Amino acid sequence: MSSSDIFIGETIGTAILILLGGGVCAAVTLKASKARNAGWLAITFGWGFAVLTAVYTTAPLSGAHLNPAVTLALAIKDGDWNNVPVYWAGQVLGAMIGAALVWIAYYGQFHAHLTDREIVGGPGAQDTAAKAVEAQETGAGPVLGVFSTGPEVRVAWQNLATEIIGTIVLVLAVLTQGLNDEGNGLGTLGALITALVVVSIGLSLGGPTGYAINPARDLGPRIVHALLPLPNKGGSDWGYAWVPVVGPLIGGAIAAGIYNVAFA
Amino acid sequence: MSSSDIFIGETIGTAILILLGGGVCAAVTLKASKARNAGWLAITFGWGFAVLTAVYTTAPLSGAHLNPAVTLALAIKDGDWNNVPVYWAGQVLGAMIGAALVWIAYYGQFHAHLTDREIVGGPGAQDTAAKAVEAQETGAGPVLGVFSTGPEVRVAWQNLATEIIGTIVLVLAVLTQGLNDEGNGLGTLGALITALVVVSIGLSLGGPTGYAINPARDLGPRIVHALLPLPNKGGSDWGYAWVPVVGPLIGGAIAAGIYNVAFA
Amino acid sequence: MSSSDIFIGETIGTAILILLGGGVCAAVTLKASKARNAGWLAITFGWGFAVLTAVYTTAPLSGAHLNPAVTLALAIKDGDWNNVPVYWAGQVLGAMIGAALVWIAYYGQFHAHLTDREIVGGPGAQDTAAKAVEAQETGAGPVLGVFSTGPEVRVAWQNLATEIIGTIVLVLAVLTQGLNDEGNGLGTLGALITALVVVSIGLSLGGPTGYAINPARDLGPRIVHALLPLPNKGGSDWGYAWVPVVGPLIGGAIAAGIYNVAFA
Amino acid sequence: MSSSDIFIGETIGTAILILLGGGVCAAVTLKASKARNAGWLAITFGWGFAVLTAVYTTAPLSGAHLNPAVTLALAIKDGDWNNVPVYWAGQVLGAMIGAALVWIAYYGQFHAHLTDREIVGGPGAQDTAAKAVEAQETGAGPVLGVFSTGPEVRVAWQNLATEIIGTIVLVLAVLTQGLNDEGNGLGTLGALITALVVVSIGLSLGGPTGYAINPARDLGPRIVHALLPLPNKGGSDWGYAWVPVVGPLIGGAIAAGIYNVAFA
Repeated sequence: MSSSDIFIGETIGTAILILLGGGVCAAVTLKASKARNAGWLAITFGWGFAVLTAVYTTAPLSGAHLNPAVTLALAIKDGDWNNVPVYWAGQVLGAMIGAALVWIAYYGQFHAHLTDREIVGGPGAQDTAAKAVEAQETGAGPVLGVFSTGPEVRVAWQNLATEIIGTIVLVLAVLTQGLNDEGNGLGTLGALITALVVVSIGLSLGGPTGYAINPARDLGPRIVHALLPLPNKGGSDWGYAWVPVVGPLIGGAIAAGIYNVAFA
Repeated sequence: MSSSDIFIGETIGTAILILLGGGVCAAVTLKASKARNAGWLAITFGWGFAVLTAVYTTAPLSGAHLNPAVTLALAIKDGDWNNVPVYWAGQVLGAMIGAALVWIAYYGQFHAHLTDREIVGGPGAQDTAAKAVEAQETGAGPVLGVFSTGPEVRVAWQNLATEIIGTIVLVLAVLTQGLNDEGNGLGTLGALITALVVVSIGLSLGGPTGYAINPARDLGPRIVHALLPLPNKGGSDWGYAWVPVVGPLIGGAIAAGIYNVAFA
Repeated sequence: MSSSDIFIGETIGTAILILLGGGVCAAVTLKASKARNAGWLAITFGWGFAVLTAVYTTAPLSGAHLNPAVTLALAIKDGDWNNVPVYWAGQVLGAMIGAALVWIAYYGQFHAHLTDREIVGGPGAQDTAAKAVEAQETGAGPVLGVFSTGPEVRVAWQNLATEIIGTIVLVLAVLTQGLNDEGNGLGTLGALITALVVVSIGLSLGGPTGYAINPARDLGPRIVHALLPLPNKGGSDWGYAWVPVVGPLIGGAIAAGIYNVAFA
Repeated sequence: MSSSDIFIGETIGTAILILLGGGVCAAVTLKASKARNAGWLAITFGWGFAVLTAVYTTAPLSGAHLNPAVTLALAIKDGDWNNVPVYWAGQVLGAMIGAALVWIAYYGQFHAHLTDREIVGGPGAQDTAAKAVEAQETGAGPVLGVFSTGPEVRVAWQNLATEIIGTIVLVLAVLTQGLNDEGNGLGTLGALITALVVVSIGLSLGGPTGYAINPARDLGPRIVHALLPLPNKGGSDWGYAWVPVVGPLIGGAIAAGIYNVAFA
């Protein structure tokens, strides 16, 4: 793969990942969304199938790491660090583009959620007015959760441990893919399995911190949250931002170590 | 593929797609349905598995585009416009047939929902009477949502943007299918992936407009809604009808452009 | 395949199908079940994965029809009626065995549900007593729905039409399996697709009648319901029993006709 | 496979299985978890995808039995008992490690749940204090269910029968995998099918006892529950502990017998 294919593939792929992953958070969280309060199962399947869509679409271009922790683990496993910076740059850029696309796709929903007033206009204005009244009855909350993760109980060592454990599970499954599928042309099936592994981690290990398990997934959208001109958006919680970056990188490195000792 | 195979395949396939897709909306929306209020996850899995069933069944006949935006994107990608009118005609006709079949399968449910009275007859009449009383206690609403999509916040540029973005995600995944599966005979797996991509778009990008991402899926059933002799059915919202036709076509064209530049 | 392999395979397979399919209905319906009120999505995935488990397990023995309507359609398609009686006999016997196994697996739950009293005994008796009080507070209902289907609105022509339409969708997908998978050894993937098609039909067409789409699935358990010594079990609704037998058989025949005209 | 590969593979695999399976129980049960009250469907998909992740990751090392009942059934089927002790030792050790990892990943959630007080510290302490108040308003319960299974109605013969029946379904599907996939390199697909079979058993047969269907899955975490220094953790219910050990072993043996008579 050429460097430009890697960069383009990772940028497009991570943009799709965060568009769909941030999108399901917006869909379930924001006012005036048909999916509001669809629940945790919707969020976990939404993120899992976001991985599927992004990996399937861009695997032919860049191999679809879409996660700096995966790139790190593969570099450790293979002892080849040449393309790491290109992968990481594409991943962070793509994550920022994806977060911005969520803002566009849910523009009116962000407005209704943050201001308790819907944008009115067009032939259906009278319906909208009725909905705006209804919207005012329920309390709007902050929107950082559409962009980045945060802990339910804020204890650094546990939050870090949870992210490390979740990432080990993810990266071990990615690394063993080669052992399962080699020579059978089943890369597509591997994308599906990886997606369901992400659903699994979300259901089982997402409760405490919201399972970043990917530094770009958390950092890119947090930057976009800080930059976007959203009224009443609240803070970007930079004090927590290091956990979902450092934790997944440690987890990826540990997984690569386990793989090299036990599986290679 | 012959023109008649394409026309028959697209007609049958889009009829199955809309029968099952409109069916899940009827199941979740209408009174006297066992699935009433089953939630957004049921709707998104319902539409996704509708795609799976329709594509799997008719792929051997016509390749199973089942979506004018997919047909447009493949024509742009391949530079071959010969069969586009045949595909489009089958898709719109099939969508209308599918919507009419939903009406037949849920005939009594439409009646109970729109009139607050169930059709009474047969050996279980006394049970039905009890249910009719229960039905009267909850308020019936309009049924256009069983047929066509509509926005939660009615702002034309955002609604159009959301449909464009959703369709780009869908069509990019369809176009890269050839890169993933070529030569492995994994067309069946491709149908499954496409279905889960549609679940993903529904979960993540369906909140604002209900994700038409397919002109035939919206236009065909809207025509049937306008024609059907349903009491109290409400208007067909023709003022919005252009958005889910134009948006997906633009999205399909953009996806084909991205593919030709970055993937080809 | 020998006649005895067919008979044994269909008996075991349909027993697994009804054990798991009836089981999910018991799990969601009965008192003192951990899955009580788990919702329509649980029921539809439960039946779909029941199909997957049963087909996957017994396909090597009998081809895993597990449904008289599928057997009928294949006989029409292939013009070979030799084994039809053996398939049908195994299917009805298996369905009865499966329904009896549901009764054993949920014995205490049936008792608690129908009598408002739990069976008390063993070291946890004091906990059970507390639960029995709680159980008494919610109203128990009839249990026929654990065994057989029934309509929400009882209108024979619509109920029949809904079962016919649902079965056409199922059987067309089964018949085209050969076109999709031939020569690729992907029978296992075909089992998964068929299972998801059944989830789709449940989500989209199950609202009016509970989607029998299989004569053995409805008739076998209805006989067992009539025979079982359950207190307060209510009637077996024999007046409706012909619909889920005749409808699926008509649907299977129509699907075979469509296949022979359009796909063969 | 060498004995050390088997031991390492089974230990890692069963640790992943119980980390993710116990994790989803913690996520849905404990206070201060984002997934609290996510429902039965979340639990069953969580356990199913736990199986998928664990089997997929460790199949290349040990064949990924991850269940003493599966190991027993394969020994009966093949008449080869050589590695049974190594498999069983790895499975019980792995299950204990997995349960301990759940405790680490959900440390703050266990604390909040069992003491009605969250651990306070770090920059978000004021938010946490507000949450602690909210947490105090809802009643905390025992946490044994995060580790081990228990019956809703405590009747030994039924509890045993339910575990036997569920395990027969699981093991029959595992044993026939060889018939379905032999020579097609579809082991990965077999892992997915097995996972969905486990979802199926959970949805359909999990209501009465919580479906251990695996002696290590229940015994290992119960030992860890007894050892962990959790305040107010309640008893480990050793009176029931034999049922989810003996039942699955009987079920596995019966399944092997059915296989040898009907399928071999």
